Amino acid sequence: MYENLKIKLNSLKNNKAFEFTVVAVIIISALEIGAKTFNLPDSAISATYILDSFITLFFLFEISVRFIADDDKKQFFKKGWNVFDTLVVAISLIPIDDSEMALLARLVRVFRVLRMVSVVPELRVLINSLIKALPQLGYVVLLMFIIFYIYAAVGSFIFKDINPTLWGDIAISMLTLFRIMTFEDWTDIQYETMEVYPLSWIFYLTFIFFTAFAFLNMVIGIVVNVMEEEHRSAKAEKEPTLKELQDELREIKALLEQRDS
Amino acid sequence: MYENLKIKLNSLKNNKAFEFTVVAVIIISALEIGAKTFNLPDSAISATYILDSFITLFFLFEISVRFIADDDKKQFFKKGWNVFDTLVVAISLIPIDDSEMALLARLVRVFRVLRMVSVVPELRVLINSLIKALPQLGYVVLLMFIIFYIYAAVGSFIFKDINPTLWGDIAISMLTLFRIMTFEDWTDIQYETMEVYPLSWIFYLTFIFFTAFAFLNMVIGIVVNVMEEEHRSAKAEKEPTLKELQDELREIKALLEQRDS
Amino acid sequence: MYENLKIKLNSLKNNKAFEFTVVAVIIISALEIGAKTFNLPDSAISATYILDSFITLFFLFEISVRFIADDDKKQFFKKGWNVFDTLVVAISLIPIDDSEMALLARLVRVFRVLRMVSVVPELRVLINSLIKALPQLGYVVLLMFIIFYIYAAVGSFIFKDINPTLWGDIAISMLTLFRIMTFEDWTDIQYETMEVYPLSWIFYLTFIFFTAFAFLNMVIGIVVNVMEEEHRSAKAEKEPTLKELQDELREIKALLEQRDS
Amino acid sequence: MYENLKIKLNSLKNNKAFEFTVVAVIIISALEIGAKTFNLPDSAISATYILDSFITLFFLFEISVRFIADDDKKQFFKKGWNVFDTLVVAISLIPIDDSEMALLARLVRVFRVLRMVSVVPELRVLINSLIKALPQLGYVVLLMFIIFYIYAAVGSFIFKDINPTLWGDIAISMLTLFRIMTFEDWTDIQYETMEVYPLSWIFYLTFIFFTAFAFLNMVIGIVVNVMEEEHRSAKAEKEPTLKELQDELREIKALLEQRDS
Repeated sequence: MYENLKIKLNSLKNNKAFEFTVVAVIIISALEIGAKTFNLPDSAISATYILDSFITLFFLFEISVRFIADDDKKQFFKKGWNVFDTLVVAISLIPIDDSEMALLARLVRVFRVLRMVSVVPELRVLINSLIKALPQLGYVVLLMFIIFYIYAAVGSFIFKDINPTLWGDIAISMLTLFRIMTFEDWTDIQYETMEVYPLSWIFYLTFIFFTAFAFLNMVIGIVVNVMEEEHRSAKAEKEPTLKELQDELREIKALLEQRDS
Repeated sequence: MYENLKIKLNSLKNNKAFEFTVVAVIIISALEIGAKTFNLPDSAISATYILDSFITLFFLFEISVRFIADDDKKQFFKKGWNVFDTLVVAISLIPIDDSEMALLARLVRVFRVLRMVSVVPELRVLINSLIKALPQLGYVVLLMFIIFYIYAAVGSFIFKDINPTLWGDIAISMLTLFRIMTFEDWTDIQYETMEVYPLSWIFYLTFIFFTAFAFLNMVIGIVVNVMEEEHRSAKAEKEPTLKELQDELREIKALLEQRDS
Repeated sequence: MYENLKIKLNSLKNNKAFEFTVVAVIIISALEIGAKTFNLPDSAISATYILDSFITLFFLFEISVRFIADDDKKQFFKKGWNVFDTLVVAISLIPIDDSEMALLARLVRVFRVLRMVSVVPELRVLINSLIKALPQLGYVVLLMFIIFYIYAAVGSFIFKDINPTLWGDIAISMLTLFRIMTFEDWTDIQYETMEVYPLSWIFYLTFIFFTAFAFLNMVIGIVVNVMEEEHRSAKAEKEPTLKELQDELREIKALLEQRDS
Repeated sequence: MYENLKIKLNSLKNNKAFEFTVVAVIIISALEIGAKTFNLPDSAISATYILDSFITLFFLFEISVRFIADDDKKQFFKKGWNVFDTLVVAISLIPIDDSEMALLARLVRVFRVLRMVSVVPELRVLINSLIKALPQLGYVVLLMFIIFYIYAAVGSFIFKDINPTLWGDIAISMLTLFRIMTFEDWTDIQYETMEVYPLSWIFYLTFIFFTAFAFLNMVIGIVVNVMEEEHRSAKAEKEPTLKELQDELREIKALLEQRDS
């Protein structure tokens, strides 16, 4: 009987209409979250409570279907997306009180929108490829962090007394340097320190050059990665290499010469 | 007799001088629109009325020529550019009153400048290739929208009471986030919320990283698309693949070996 | 005797030491221009007058050497860089009065620094390649101009009364739109018009998207151009195409089959 | 006995645990520098003094090990990274007084964090490739400098009296131009000069175009460099060229034809 249920749920899971229903409920859930940010009349607010319960139940139903329909229960929770889905649903089940927790519960509901990514395969592929690209960029990110750290240390040593809200300690300085990297009112910061240390423009200019260079390297790193990926997938199509062609040519020549002698 | 007219109009349509006249009238129309934004003397204003009527009549004449000269009347309105041209001309025919509609009529006249794109084939190719590239980028745009939506919801939940003009509801929050993405005075917004929630810099930094990453992905997506396009057009030149060369080499070897035995 | 002079000047022109002297004088000329922007003592000012005369005379001498040493006098002025050099030298000869012209004469002297480009071959190659790339980008630039023109016309029609210093006429509007494209305090402009027309954010957002897209296209256009250039120069190394290899293979096969029969 | 020591130190140097210890000490050193920027209690300050001495001694020990273990003492100081490491350690040995030098000594300690780059091979490769790329970009940087110099000279000639803090002399003007290149409040500068010279927008727009173009060229230069590097390393894998394949094909054909005759 359990096997019967499993087969039925599996056919339900792979049903196009069911998939569309899931996407539709996620969109409704997103719209509800958006609507809540507006000032709603009381009747609408109580409507969202009912809608909320319905969405929570539907998600609970859907994740159960997927769990029961799965052949290998152990493997189910080894997939990151399944764990994510289950967590979002589980935390949604915690009842909302009029306490501090209310805000937290609300925020968790926002993450339901991310379920869009776990449901639409194309988005999942996109995110997976982003996550795969990260470790390869690790060393450029580390280099950038070192640059930030050194400049933040130097900045808070020298400029601390000029403006403690910008250069008070190394953490604040790093935030200030990030602001400078985005070119956000960076000259105001520069002019302020240049009044005390007229040569401090060197600090800002070298920082901008180094981060721009490191950033450029990161971009090029990603582009080269993407291209090598393309190259590799092209090779996987079993195209022979030029080397292999050359080997075959040499075999033919050997055959011809062998017969001559 | 109708056939006669059609042949004559067709030769007119393909006449170089006629094409240049059309471009010239569009440029005059653009200059007229530009001139109207300046404070003109009364005489000049009445001159623009006459010019306006002339341009409208000329465009009506031109679109009629193209319509009559066309062999397949049904296909004519299936081309987007023809529909666009006809719409612009048709709406221009509505007389301008000194009412609210006057502004609308004026705006429609501005779109006449876009007729430049429909007339110059190189620009048409450019726009067509842009439109073709859009659906392939669809999922990255969707991902970006989801990121915006989630951050806007979180932002208006948490920061609503701090500054309602920036975080009042989800729509205003999305506009604020777009502003942050362009790095426009984003630190002012950040400092304001950091006074209440000192850790809110995490909100801004992660948002900037995610959108930058998604944007980068979009750019790389376009570049890879363009290159594959090039690749495909190179293949369309009937260049044999290495695989095909290998097959031919094997045939030769087979021929040689077969004869030996 | 003239021929004698010509040969001597030609050997002088191609002399390494002479080339270095020219570069050195250009650098001195650049430093002098820079020095003049500081408040100098009277003695230094009179020194610059003497230096100025010397530089002018040296440049006159150098351009004469190059002109006389040239074999084909007619071709001399057909090269853009020669015309540029001669113009800069000629205008330098006009004496500086303490009049309005003084500023102009000073500005012309600044262009002497550009002679660096005409003297150093690597910089000349760089600039030439930039100029060559421009016409290919022509249509994207035209498209961008059309986008600017349409938005400027719409902007000055609708927003003129809100802020005439930003949207007064189509010329001022285009400058404002360029400012928006660089994201320079664009939200201030937006918030101002949103008070009257709450939907005017559509105007700004679509403008930013269109220009970003057109700009992206321009960048990709340049990258693709550069790559095709590389590709073509690789082909110029007489690498056979795969098609040619296939043809040769077929000839061999034909040879083999012909003998069999 | 010295040889014995050398072998022992060499095995220590290549020991994984030792390498991790070095990285760990550098990280501790970085954390200590960061901690010093906060307001620490007196006990913590004296703790940092002890930690500081320990780190200095450890670095001295480590550099000695690497120096003694090295086979060729003369080559040791020809490697940039070794010189850098030795300098950082040597300057750290200078005792900190409560004088002006204290700040300097502190700054030198910050550079210890850069030792991370000299210790982690992947970061060293990254930096080396950056340094290698620089000379190839030399001429674009020179061109950019010339553009900056000319615009700074013109700017300080014309705008000096309008705002001496921005256009006072050529050095200040170059800083102002760098600010304009980063789009930082550049319209404020523009509007100020446009009040006196209404056409001065030409100055700003052409400057932005030229620098954007030069910058674009730089990026493309780097990308093309990277790709050629890839190409060359692909060739180094001894892939035959198409030309070589063609030559072999022709040899086979010659063999066949020769036999026929």
